[in-house]
Amino acid sequence: MRLLRVGDPGTEIPAVLDDAGQARDLRPVTSEINGDFLAGGGVARVREALTGLPELDVTGMRIGAPVARPGALVCIGLNYSDHAAETAAEPPSEPVVFMKNTNTVVGPNDTVLVPRASAKTDYEVELAVVLGATARYLDSPQDAAAVIAGYAISNDVSEREFQIERGGQWTKGKSCETFNPLGPWLVTADEVGDPQALGLRLSVNGELRQDGNTKNMLFGVHHVIWYLSQFMVLEPGDVVNTGTPAGVALGVNDFGYLRAGDTIEIGVDRLGVQRQRVGQA
Amino acid sequence: MRLLRVGDPGTEIPAVLDDAGQARDLRPVTSEINGDFLAGGGVARVREALTGLPELDVTGMRIGAPVARPGALVCIGLNYSDHAAETAAEPPSEPVVFMKNTNTVVGPNDTVLVPRASAKTDYEVELAVVLGATARYLDSPQDAAAVIAGYAISNDVSEREFQIERGGQWTKGKSCETFNPLGPWLVTADEVGDPQALGLRLSVNGELRQDGNTKNMLFGVHHVIWYLSQFMVLEPGDVVNTGTPAGVALGVNDFGYLRAGDTIEIGVDRLGVQRQRVGQA
Repeated sequence: MRLLRVGDPGTEIPAVLDDAGQARDLRPVTSEINGDFLAGGGVARVREALTGLPELDVTGMRIGAPVARPGALVCIGLNYSDHAAETAAEPPSEPVVFMKNTNTVVGPNDTVLVPRASAKTDYEVELAVVLGATARYLDSPQDAAAVIAGYAISNDVSEREFQIERGGQWTKGKSCETFNPLGPWLVTADEVGDPQALGLRLSVNGELRQDGNTKNMLFGVHHVIWYLSQFMVLEPGDVVNTGTPAGVALGVNDFGYLRAGDTIEIGVDRLGVQRQRVGQA
Repeated sequence: MRLLRVGDPGTEIPAVLDDAGQARDLRPVTSEINGDFLAGGGVARVREALTGLPELDVTGMRIGAPVARPGALVCIGLNYSDHAAETAAEPPSEPVVFMKNTNTVVGPNDTVLVPRASAKTDYEVELAVVLGATARYLDSPQDAAAVIAGYAISNDVSEREFQIERGGQWTKGKSCETFNPLGPWLVTADEVGDPQALGLRLSVNGELRQDGNTKNMLFGVHHVIWYLSQFMVLEPGDVVNTGTPAGVALGVNDFGYLRAGDTIEIGVDRLGVQRQRVGQA
């Protein structure tokens, strides 16, 4: 099942793509795709109602993030061996965890703004996990599947000078306005299959920069969710960015940082594509 | 004006203390104390309506956090010279910023849970700033006063092993369940006066551990809010913890970490008192 939200920011309506790729209006089933919907058996209700839902013409409509603003946007750093290597960081012995302001979440094709005073705005394609149930002190990684509603694409946009050269913690370079395009779809876990077998790609102005696979994660999705649940309570609707593969501008490559006018294109197997223009704050 | 929320978790009702300290029911004015209320002139409406509001008997009622769950809970680290010194950290040249999961916010007298597998659960009395308007690229610290609704007490509970010894960023030791008692009141900025002239005190089991003053902040409240607005968009209802003075268990003192059964008592001038029992997750 591919769930989405379409319309202007703040007034998106919920929709679903049927097997033929036709969008259908989800409002007969729910007014919103959020934690309450996901935790309350919403996906099963959609499945039951699907063929009877009215078709929706989404031509020309903006696509929003596929879940309403999450309670938490948690991120794993340095979670691909190739990315750790390119940033000259030791592969971590356990997951590196940080948080972004949840108001960074925007639609998959919304404009990404280079912050004022920024010289090092960077991109990061990531597999995002969307929680479907509360995760608190899970007993083992095997218990993680039961709390995962599905997956989406994240662009974990990052300002490297703010993140690394301005003292202290990474948050400063991770929470700028528009810094987390999400979507286009929330694809339910059953439809994604093995989350450790997904190709991820990111291009800037048509040049392929990142070309990775989730099989190269140091800590897999189920491990990450189990691990996080030992340190905080994850809630339905929360979003977890699971790290980025090699190819970011920060790395050893000769790639430039993002500038206003650039175009970013992102694809992850089974999860669709994003396309962002870069603007200036 | 002292605003508060009373009742069971998730069903708190808004209230206000009048000049005589009598609680009055705020529901004739608003259903909730949150960002929309604060940004929409709510405080002025309360002031006007105050003497006509029905008295409310809050005897025996739980006090909740004085604002509904914020969109962001942003924190400043190492912001008092004495605390930086006791943790053997260099005083930072600009504010150190990190974020906590917003679901750590609990009432001022709720139980604080020592996480499972924790040996180093610590306390931190802090002055919390509550935003009353959006802050985005403020021109100068002088512009900060206009976006501050008021102040409250935060206990920025921290697990030091998770924070420092488990790899990576501080978030892991800052976001555990119940780790941010807030309140009892949101005291409006006009009633607090100079935010850099407030004594802060914290005791554990009757022993005074922290005894500081906001005049010793390295970066004052207005500087902090201006600074943060260069890196993220702060929204009405957001909460910013501005750092803790010396005396935490992590420091050079011979203070022990928190254990189930302990009692924490916290006071900040003009902002009331908190009292938490420590339990075990």
